Amino acid sequence: MNGRMIARILGTVLLLLAGVLLLPLIVGLIYGESVRGFALTIALAAALGLTLLLCLKPKSTEIYAREGFTAVGLVWITMSLIGALPLVLNGDIPRYVDAVFEVTSGFTTTGASVVPDVEALSRSGMFWRIFTHWLGGMGVLVFVMAVMPLGGDRSMHIMRAEVPGPTVGKLVPRARKTAMILYLIYLGLTLLETVFLLFGGMSFYEALLHSFASAGTGGFSTRAASIGAFDSAYIETVIGVFLILFGTNFNLYYLILIGRAKDALKSEELHWYLGIIAFCVAAIAVGLRPIYGSVGTALRHAFFNVTTIVSTTGFGTEDFTKWPGYIQMLLICLMLIGGCAGSTGGGLKVSRLILLVKTAAADVRKMVRPRSVNRVSLDGQRVSRETTSAVYTFFALYMLILFGCTLLLSLDGHNFATGLSAAPDDFATCFTAALSCMSNIGPGMTAAIGPKGGFGFFSDFSKIVMSLTMLCGRLEIYAILILFLPSTWRKN
Amino acid sequence: MNGRMIARILGTVLLLLAGVLLLPLIVGLIYGESVRGFALTIALAAALGLTLLLCLKPKSTEIYAREGFTAVGLVWITMSLIGALPLVLNGDIPRYVDAVFEVTSGFTTTGASVVPDVEALSRSGMFWRIFTHWLGGMGVLVFVMAVMPLGGDRSMHIMRAEVPGPTVGKLVPRARKTAMILYLIYLGLTLLETVFLLFGGMSFYEALLHSFASAGTGGFSTRAASIGAFDSAYIETVIGVFLILFGTNFNLYYLILIGRAKDALKSEELHWYLGIIAFCVAAIAVGLRPIYGSVGTALRHAFFNVTTIVSTTGFGTEDFTKWPGYIQMLLICLMLIGGCAGSTGGGLKVSRLILLVKTAAADVRKMVRPRSVNRVSLDGQRVSRETTSAVYTFFALYMLILFGCTLLLSLDGHNFATGLSAAPDDFATCFTAALSCMSNIGPGMTAAIGPKGGFGFFSDFSKIVMSLTMLCGRLEIYAILILFLPSTWRKN
Repeated sequence: MNGRMIARILGTVLLLLAGVLLLPLIVGLIYGESVRGFALTIALAAALGLTLLLCLKPKSTEIYAREGFTAVGLVWITMSLIGALPLVLNGDIPRYVDAVFEVTSGFTTTGASVVPDVEALSRSGMFWRIFTHWLGGMGVLVFVMAVMPLGGDRSMHIMRAEVPGPTVGKLVPRARKTAMILYLIYLGLTLLETVFLLFGGMSFYEALLHSFASAGTGGFSTRAASIGAFDSAYIETVIGVFLILFGTNFNLYYLILIGRAKDALKSEELHWYLGIIAFCVAAIAVGLRPIYGSVGTALRHAFFNVTTIVSTTGFGTEDFTKWPGYIQMLLICLMLIGGCAGSTGGGLKVSRLILLVKTAAADVRKMVRPRSVNRVSLDGQRVSRETTSAVYTFFALYMLILFGCTLLLSLDGHNFATGLSAAPDDFATCFTAALSCMSNIGPGMTAAIGPKGGFGFFSDFSKIVMSLTMLCGRLEIYAILILFLPSTWRKN
Repeated sequence: MNGRMIARILGTVLLLLAGVLLLPLIVGLIYGESVRGFALTIALAAALGLTLLLCLKPKSTEIYAREGFTAVGLVWITMSLIGALPLVLNGDIPRYVDAVFEVTSGFTTTGASVVPDVEALSRSGMFWRIFTHWLGGMGVLVFVMAVMPLGGDRSMHIMRAEVPGPTVGKLVPRARKTAMILYLIYLGLTLLETVFLLFGGMSFYEALLHSFASAGTGGFSTRAASIGAFDSAYIETVIGVFLILFGTNFNLYYLILIGRAKDALKSEELHWYLGIIAFCVAAIAVGLRPIYGSVGTALRHAFFNVTTIVSTTGFGTEDFTKWPGYIQMLLICLMLIGGCAGSTGGGLKVSRLILLVKTAAADVRKMVRPRSVNRVSLDGQRVSRETTSAVYTFFALYMLILFGCTLLLSLDGHNFATGLSAAPDDFATCFTAALSCMSNIGPGMTAAIGPKGGFGFFSDFSKIVMSLTMLCGRLEIYAILILFLPSTWRKN
């Protein structure tokens, strides 16, 4: 393995981290807060980054899939471990494990929080906490690639490890240019949402931070009551629409930009995605009407909560854990499905669901007519057996990790001497907490961890398990799993 | 499609059904109960069977996979629909939907019950209810094949559709002889368990019926409190051991019978199966010790409940829905895994879990070292890519049906006019009810449907959904799914 090249990537990212930490530092200076925590962390990240870059010069810039995945896994863990420091140092989140959970939840765009009272956070701490969503949404390394040349022509391996979806659509032949295009679209949409939110009466600070959190489909809010605090149908509609946009494959925006809007609108994944949203909004609104009294209010809550869940954002307005059972189950299914490939949303991804269903149908058809041609196609193009097999593997691993994480969480708070548990250890809490982490949603489906609850009560062990699960979810498993595989670290 | 051959199979099975219904009729006569219901059903089944056999003579006995799966699906649905009649006619279960649910639960060896007070059932009704477990356990059509020649040399297609597991191990070249051997082993073990239970002080009637229910890994009991009613460590141990035996691949017994015990004991699936059981018994006993006070009692309850769940039987002693969260989660994992391939147990099957884990590991390894040889082997033999791919398809379909059933069940009792639900519609109840049906367990993991609960409160719609789910689980999906596929019914 080209370890020196991984060190170079890691060093570059640490320098970048030092750079972006200047932003909350500036915010702190503007609001007259102590910025010692940020300054110290910047110094540490810069020193570590320079050390790696200067001491371990790569002999070759060649990287392969193994280096790509390993680098991405290590980069994200390092970012979380170091990005947590300023929040500890400035007193926002005193315990390091809590801060690591919070920042991992930020970078992975999960949005699950252990902070008991977010409104007590410093302005600079709040800015950093939410800015991690924006950085993590489109990918830290994709950002690095957009800014500077990294791994020569092979940086596609990095992109593959960081951009979600069963296949990576190269927009243009060069990975670096693809990264730049993606980030420009991302930035443009973020600023557009900020403007729309300003019109809704939000302050610039809150409009910008909620746009960051929407863009990354993260879900952290500046308010304890999340979006519900604004109680504005306008704001909910704006955010809902933008969440749909951020949950869409960014390649489609590129197609629109180069004048191929017709092709973009033909995307099968887009049709399924919008169809699922429309169906769920309607089905949920029907159930909410008797609860909220009017069709309008029912539609408003259905629309906002469907978009915030399917895009795996997790902003809150109403406590959906009190809604009828079938609505909760629909939301759980949406948590599992998630957004489109190549978007900032998490979950299995709509395109994987399509491929799963189509491949399974083809396999059953094959049983009926063994001599029939067993083709699976997407957007009119034949999908290779390799891709469908990779989708199956991913699905199996997703489920194994989901159930594994649930099992570990169900140990939370259990006292083996008394047989009693100090924390909610029921199946629904543990399973939807695990699902929420794996799909990078934020809230779970029981009161304790729902839109009005939090993840603070979990033990340190559970917080570490959930942090790893969030990373598995955001990086689509392999980049994290590979770090635990002995053969990764063996010499060739 | 060779529809006439399917009619012949169906007709043969109906005659067989008329034949086995003589058994509860005799039981009824012995105990002086009214046997009108059984007599009428026997007449109906025989008339229908003869009509099919005499009116639709097949031009050829050729059958292929499509005919095999379709026949098996239709046979099982017919058996459930007609087998329910005597319970309605003799007043044991007055409502037809309830009786269909109960008998489907019997044939599929699920053991979920809608009967509010089983001890009030007639002796003959009780016998029939539990005897369906024994018939369904090893397979209705396998039984037919053991008794009479059916589809010529191609009856392997029937076996494949009815015997659980990723591949069907032909014991001997002729399918019919394989079926006979399997049934003899099955009968032998059942009688052996009966003898052991007689020594525990059970009456012959109860010993026989509990042996039927164990052999099929069904879970119906003659008592409302299930095995807990006997409060005997001896009986629990005997049943637990036999459940492990019935959850083991029957091919291993054949190997032992022909003097190849050494090969049988080398089975990788057996090692995993016993390993999983040992681990779970230990892990659960640790958690039960403070609750039950002594290590002995904790081990006793852990052993019985692990064996009854992993074998997908579902006999009850203690109310495990009140046990600590991690124990419930372990039991839920066992529900998902189930017994070995080629056993009477349900669930995904241990061998599929092994293949899932091994294939996923191989796929991840392949990512690290793309040029490495990507082989998956079981019992020292290489597993074809076709088989692992079929395992993945099965797993995906299993999960899709599981979540689909959960979604439908969460609608249960919901009133769209008031927004209120008349039945438990929470995620844990609906999900574990669906899982319990899909894996043919019996109880679910919340109080309403746990060992002390029942499935009677569900709506008729939910009962039909659950009946189909139980059939999907028992017949490993395809034989039921194929009936809903338009291409099955299209002419070639």
